[in-house]
Amino acid sequence: MPEQITITFPDGSEKEYPKGTTGRAVAESISKGLAREALSITLDDEIMDLSRPIEQDGTITINTWDTEDGKYTFWHSSAHVLAEAVQALYPDAKFGIGPPIEDGFYYDIDFGDQTVGEDDLEEIEDKMIEMARKKSTFERRPVSKEEALKFYKDTGNEYKIDLISELEDGNITFYEQGDFTDLCRGPHIPDTGRIKAVKLTSLAGAYWRGDEENEQLTRIYGISFPKQKLLKQYIKRVEEAKKRDHKKLGKELDIYMIDSMVGKGLPVWLPNGTTLRRTLEAFLREEQKKRGYKEVITPHIGNLDLYRTSGHYPYYRESQYNPIDVDDEGYLLKPMNCPHHHRIYSNKLHSYRDLPLRLAEFGSVYRYEQSGELNGLSRVRGFTQDDAHIYCTHDQLKSEIENCIDLTEFVFGTFEMPVDIRLSFRDDNEEKYGGDTEYWDRAEKEIKEVADEMDLDYTIARGEASFYGPKIDFIIRDAIGRKWQLGTVQVDYVMPERFDLTYIGSDNSEHRPVIIHRAPFGSMERFTSILIEHFAGDFPVWLAPKQVQIIPISDDFNEYAYECASALKKHDVRVEVDTRSEQVGGKIRDAETSKIPYMLIVGEDEQTTDTVSVRRHKEGDIGTFDFSEFISNLTDEIDNKDLPNH
Amino acid sequence: MPEQITITFPDGSEKEYPKGTTGRAVAESISKGLAREALSITLDDEIMDLSRPIEQDGTITINTWDTEDGKYTFWHSSAHVLAEAVQALYPDAKFGIGPPIEDGFYYDIDFGDQTVGEDDLEEIEDKMIEMARKKSTFERRPVSKEEALKFYKDTGNEYKIDLISELEDGNITFYEQGDFTDLCRGPHIPDTGRIKAVKLTSLAGAYWRGDEENEQLTRIYGISFPKQKLLKQYIKRVEEAKKRDHKKLGKELDIYMIDSMVGKGLPVWLPNGTTLRRTLEAFLREEQKKRGYKEVITPHIGNLDLYRTSGHYPYYRESQYNPIDVDDEGYLLKPMNCPHHHRIYSNKLHSYRDLPLRLAEFGSVYRYEQSGELNGLSRVRGFTQDDAHIYCTHDQLKSEIENCIDLTEFVFGTFEMPVDIRLSFRDDNEEKYGGDTEYWDRAEKEIKEVADEMDLDYTIARGEASFYGPKIDFIIRDAIGRKWQLGTVQVDYVMPERFDLTYIGSDNSEHRPVIIHRAPFGSMERFTSILIEHFAGDFPVWLAPKQVQIIPISDDFNEYAYECASALKKHDVRVEVDTRSEQVGGKIRDAETSKIPYMLIVGEDEQTTDTVSVRRHKEGDIGTFDFSEFISNLTDEIDNKDLPNH
Repeated sequence: MPEQITITFPDGSEKEYPKGTTGRAVAESISKGLAREALSITLDDEIMDLSRPIEQDGTITINTWDTEDGKYTFWHSSAHVLAEAVQALYPDAKFGIGPPIEDGFYYDIDFGDQTVGEDDLEEIEDKMIEMARKKSTFERRPVSKEEALKFYKDTGNEYKIDLISELEDGNITFYEQGDFTDLCRGPHIPDTGRIKAVKLTSLAGAYWRGDEENEQLTRIYGISFPKQKLLKQYIKRVEEAKKRDHKKLGKELDIYMIDSMVGKGLPVWLPNGTTLRRTLEAFLREEQKKRGYKEVITPHIGNLDLYRTSGHYPYYRESQYNPIDVDDEGYLLKPMNCPHHHRIYSNKLHSYRDLPLRLAEFGSVYRYEQSGELNGLSRVRGFTQDDAHIYCTHDQLKSEIENCIDLTEFVFGTFEMPVDIRLSFRDDNEEKYGGDTEYWDRAEKEIKEVADEMDLDYTIARGEASFYGPKIDFIIRDAIGRKWQLGTVQVDYVMPERFDLTYIGSDNSEHRPVIIHRAPFGSMERFTSILIEHFAGDFPVWLAPKQVQIIPISDDFNEYAYECASALKKHDVRVEVDTRSEQVGGKIRDAETSKIPYMLIVGEDEQTTDTVSVRRHKEGDIGTFDFSEFISNLTDEIDNKDLPNH
Repeated sequence: MPEQITITFPDGSEKEYPKGTTGRAVAESISKGLAREALSITLDDEIMDLSRPIEQDGTITINTWDTEDGKYTFWHSSAHVLAEAVQALYPDAKFGIGPPIEDGFYYDIDFGDQTVGEDDLEEIEDKMIEMARKKSTFERRPVSKEEALKFYKDTGNEYKIDLISELEDGNITFYEQGDFTDLCRGPHIPDTGRIKAVKLTSLAGAYWRGDEENEQLTRIYGISFPKQKLLKQYIKRVEEAKKRDHKKLGKELDIYMIDSMVGKGLPVWLPNGTTLRRTLEAFLREEQKKRGYKEVITPHIGNLDLYRTSGHYPYYRESQYNPIDVDDEGYLLKPMNCPHHHRIYSNKLHSYRDLPLRLAEFGSVYRYEQSGELNGLSRVRGFTQDDAHIYCTHDQLKSEIENCIDLTEFVFGTFEMPVDIRLSFRDDNEEKYGGDTEYWDRAEKEIKEVADEMDLDYTIARGEASFYGPKIDFIIRDAIGRKWQLGTVQVDYVMPERFDLTYIGSDNSEHRPVIIHRAPFGSMERFTSILIEHFAGDFPVWLAPKQVQIIPISDDFNEYAYECASALKKHDVRVEVDTRSEQVGGKIRDAETSKIPYMLIVGEDEQTTDTVSVRRHKEGDIGTFDFSEFISNLTDEIDNKDLPNH
C-alpha cells in the first residue's frame, strides 16, 4: 500500500489519499460534477493546478468558477489564450506580463511597428475563441534558468529576459498550451476549452514595469467566462453600472460638485446632496443615541504631538498633507479622528462604572491621494467618517462587539444591502502586530464566539488584522451584485498604551481600557456614491432630497397647491410646488428626470374634494387619494424607511 | 455783534453761538442739569474739553457719563489722578503712558528701586479719592517742544522725553491738575471732583512701548465712577461675571475642553457641549428651512485660487494659516466660507426666476490669533460660523435684508437677549470701499428704509461699513447688561464682480446679482460662551444637555424609573436614570450641581399611582404630578422654548 496523506476539507472533515494524488483525483472522489467544474485547487494557502501531485497533508479547497481563487485561475489562463491568439495574428509581437485582475485580466504586449487599436479587438476575440475550442491542455514544465533565457533569446523577447534575470534557478516554470509557451508560475485551468466567452474591454498604454523611462507597451484588457450566458450578464451589468454611475447621476441630481478652483478631490455637497447626507447622519445618530453613544465635535487640525504619540507621524507621511507651522508648532490636517477622541477620554478620570464610553463623531478627515486616483465621491482627498471609539473593559469587549455588529447589520439591512462578514485575524508574522499576545488570542476567540452566537455567516482571513488588533470587515453587495468593503469594527490594544489611557477597576487599581474603532458607513462620501449607484438615484422616499412635487394644472390652483405643501411641511415632508408657466406634461417629465418619488397633480376636482391625483416616479398615475390619506400613507412610508418597489 | 457760528445738534436742529463759545456755554444754554453732567464735548469727530473755545461751525454732542466719549474722558482724567496720587506717595516714580481703555484706565509707571504690589493699591486708591476731593481743575497748556523737553529733563523722565521726541513742535500740550503735570493731548473733565469712586483692579508688568528689549514698567489698572453706587454695581457685576465665566462653567458642565496636545485655541466639544450646539444648529436650521434657505457642505480647505480671486490672499496673511502644498498647488485652511459658496453659485446657469438663492452652511473656519489673545470659547483659532450667502437681484435686496433682520431678531428674541441695531455705512474716505457708488447709495438708502419700515431703533455708524458694502450689526445685551456684537448682515457688490457671478434677467441679458452675507450667531463657539454666561449655565430646558434626571429612592424602583425614562425618550427628552448606590440627597445634590432642570424622585407611592415627584433645579420640590401630565407640561416647555423663571 502506497504512503498515505491526510487531506482536510473546508468543513473540517478529513480523508486519506495516496501520496502524490492530484486535485483532480480528490475532486473526482467527491463527485463527477465537482471534477467537471473544478478549475484549480487551493492547498493551504497555495493555488495549484488540478494535475499537480499533492505530496503532503493539507487543507484543500476545490476552486470552481464560483470562488475567487477559481476566477483568478480562469482569468490567468485566459490571459495566456489572449497571448496565444495575438501570437497567431501578430507573429512578431513580444509579450510582457499578463496577470488576472479583479475583473478579468490583461496582457502587456509590444507590437513593434504594428499599430493595434480598438478595431482589432474583435478579431483577437474571435481568434481567442478559436484557440479555446481546441481544448489545448495547459502543461507545466519546470525549466532551468539557462534554458529559459535561451528560449527568449531565440525569440528575441527582452521583457521576459528581464523578468527571468531576477528569478532563482530551480524555481522557474514554463506553461504551454497549443503553440504558445509562456514564462509562468501558474496555476492554470486544465484546458482552454473551459473558456466559452471572451470580451476584450479596452486598450491602454503601459510602460514596462510602470516606469515611464521604459518602452511603452499596449495593454489589452479582457474578461472571459465559462458560459456564454455569464458574458451576457456581465455586459448587462456593465451597462447598468454605467447608467448608475454616481458621477453622472451626482451631477444630474445636483448631489455634489467637484470644482478645480475649490480643489481636486474635495467634493462640495450641493443642497440635494446635503439633504441626503444630513438624512443619513440623522438616521445613524438616532440609532447611536439609542445605543448609548455620545456625540462630540473635534477640530479639523491637530498638533503633531497627537500623531507622534499615536505613531502616525512621521510613518504615514505619504497619505498626509504637509504640516502647517503655527507659532513654531506643526499642525496636521486631521488624517483620522482617533487621537482627538483619546484625548477626550483622558480629560477625565474614569471608573469602571463609567465604561463603556462610546464617543461618536461625524469627523471630517483629509488624506492625500494621487490626482490620478481621484474618482467622484468614491475616491477623494477629504471625507467624513461616521466614526466612533468605544472605550471598554476587557470584560465588556464581547458585548460591545456584538452591539457594533448588530448596528452595522441594522444599518445595511435598512438599505437591503446583503452583508458578508470577514473576521480579519493575525497570521504568524508576529512582527506585523502590536499589543499583548494574550489579549490578541482572547480578542480573536471572543470575536469568533460573538460571530457564532449571533449565527453569522462569516469567513476568517488570517493576516488581514490591523496593526493594533483583530477586526471585522463588512462587505456589502449592491443592487447589481457588486461588492464593496464598507463598515469595519476594529479592536485596539495599542493606542490605550500609547495615550496612557486608564480606568480605576473595581479592585481600586489602574487598568487599561480596550478601544473599539467602528464606522458602519466608513465614509459619508464613498457610501453616498454607493447608495446613488445601488438605487440608481431612485432613492427611497425617506432619503429622497425632494419627496413630493405638487403640480397645479393651472394658476387657479396654486393656492390649493400651496395649502397642500404647507400641510405636508408640517409633517417634515420635503415638498415643492411647481408654478412655472409650463405644460403639466412638461412638469411631470421634469419631476421624473429629477427622480422625485411623488407628484401630486391638483386641479378643480382635487380642490373641491380635498383630494390629490398621485403619480409615483417610474410607475405613473396611481390614482386619486383623499389628501389626508395620502399624508398618512406617505408619512408611514417615510417612518418605515420603505424601499422603492422597482 | 461778535461773529456767529452755527452749531448742529444730534437731532439735526441748529443754533447760532458767538464764535469762541465753549462746550460748557453750549451745555448751559440747553439746561443747567446738562451742564452739571457734562464731561466733554464731541465736535464733529474730535472730543474736546468743555472749556475749549469753539471757533467754527460743527455738529456737537455733549458727552455725559452715559456716552462712550464721556466715559473715555472720565477715565482719561482718572489716569491722571492715579498718577497724581502715585507722585504724592512715591515722589521718585516716573510715568510712561496712561490711557483710558474699554473698561477703565491704566498707567505704566517706573517705581525705580521701590516695589509696589497688590497690597499697596488700597493706599493709592485712598490718595486718589483725597486728590479728587480737592476738585482741582484740569488746565490745558500748549507748550513748545523745547519747553516740554526741558520740563522732563529736569524731572529726569526719559519716557516722556522719548514720547516728545516724536511730536511736532506747535502740537504739544501739557495738562495740569493740582501739583501734577502731564504731557497730554487731552481732553479732560472739568475738575477732579467729578471722580467719586475708584477701584484699582490689578497690577501687571508692561515693557516700555511693548518691546521686551526695553525697561519693564508696572502697569496699574483701575476703574472710576462719578457715583459711589456705580462702583458698587460694577463690583457686583464683576463678581457675577466671574461666577458666570464660561471657562469655569464650561469645565464644570462638561461643555468643552481645550487640550494643548490637540492644539491651542482649538476647542473640543464634549458630549454635553455637542448636544447644546446641535440643538442650537437644529433650531436655526429649522428657521432657515422655513425661510427658504438651502444647506450645503463645503470642504475645510480651499485652493489658493479661491482666495486670490476674492482678494483675501495674500492681503490677509496675518490672520491666515500658512498654505499647504499639494502637488505644487497651495491650499488654505478655510478662513471663510464665502468663496466656496460663490463657486456653488457659479456651478449652474441662473435665471432671475431662480433668485434669491440662499445658501447656508454651518461652516468651520480657521484663523490665526496670537496665543496671548486666546480665551476659552470666545477667542479661538477654529470656529464654526452659522453662515449664509443670499444671491439676489437688486430689486430683491430690500425684502431679503428685511428677512435677515427678522430672522436675527427672532433668534435673539428666543433667548430674551435685547438687540441694538447699528447701520454701518460708508464715510467720505471713498478709497476704503469697493463697488459702484450708485449701488452703495441705493443700498444704504434701502437698508435705512427697511429699518424705518420695520420701526427699528437703530444708530448709524459712518465709516463702519465693510470694504464690499454697507452692513447691519446686531449688538446684544446679556442678562447682566454686557454688550456683545454678534449677528451681522452685509451687502456685497464686490465679490459678484470678482467671481464673475451672473444671472439672466427678464430682459434676457446678463446681470450681476448682489450678495448678502449673514450670520445671526456669528460663531457657534463665541455664541455658546455668551449663552453660558447669559444663563449662568442654567439653560432653558430645550437647550439643557440633560433635561431630566430620574432618581429612584431605592433599587426596587429602578424598573419604574427606566419605564419613565423610556417613555420620555419616546418624546425625544434627554433623560438619565441615576442608579448609583448613593443616598437620594446626594443624587439630588449632584443633579443640582449639573444644573439638570428636572429631577423625578420615584418610589413606592409614585410607582403605585403612575406619578412622579418633581424637583425643579434651583426651586426644589414642585409637587407630585401624574406622569402623563408631567410629560405633557415638559414637552410644551421644550416646544415653546420657555426660559427659566429665575
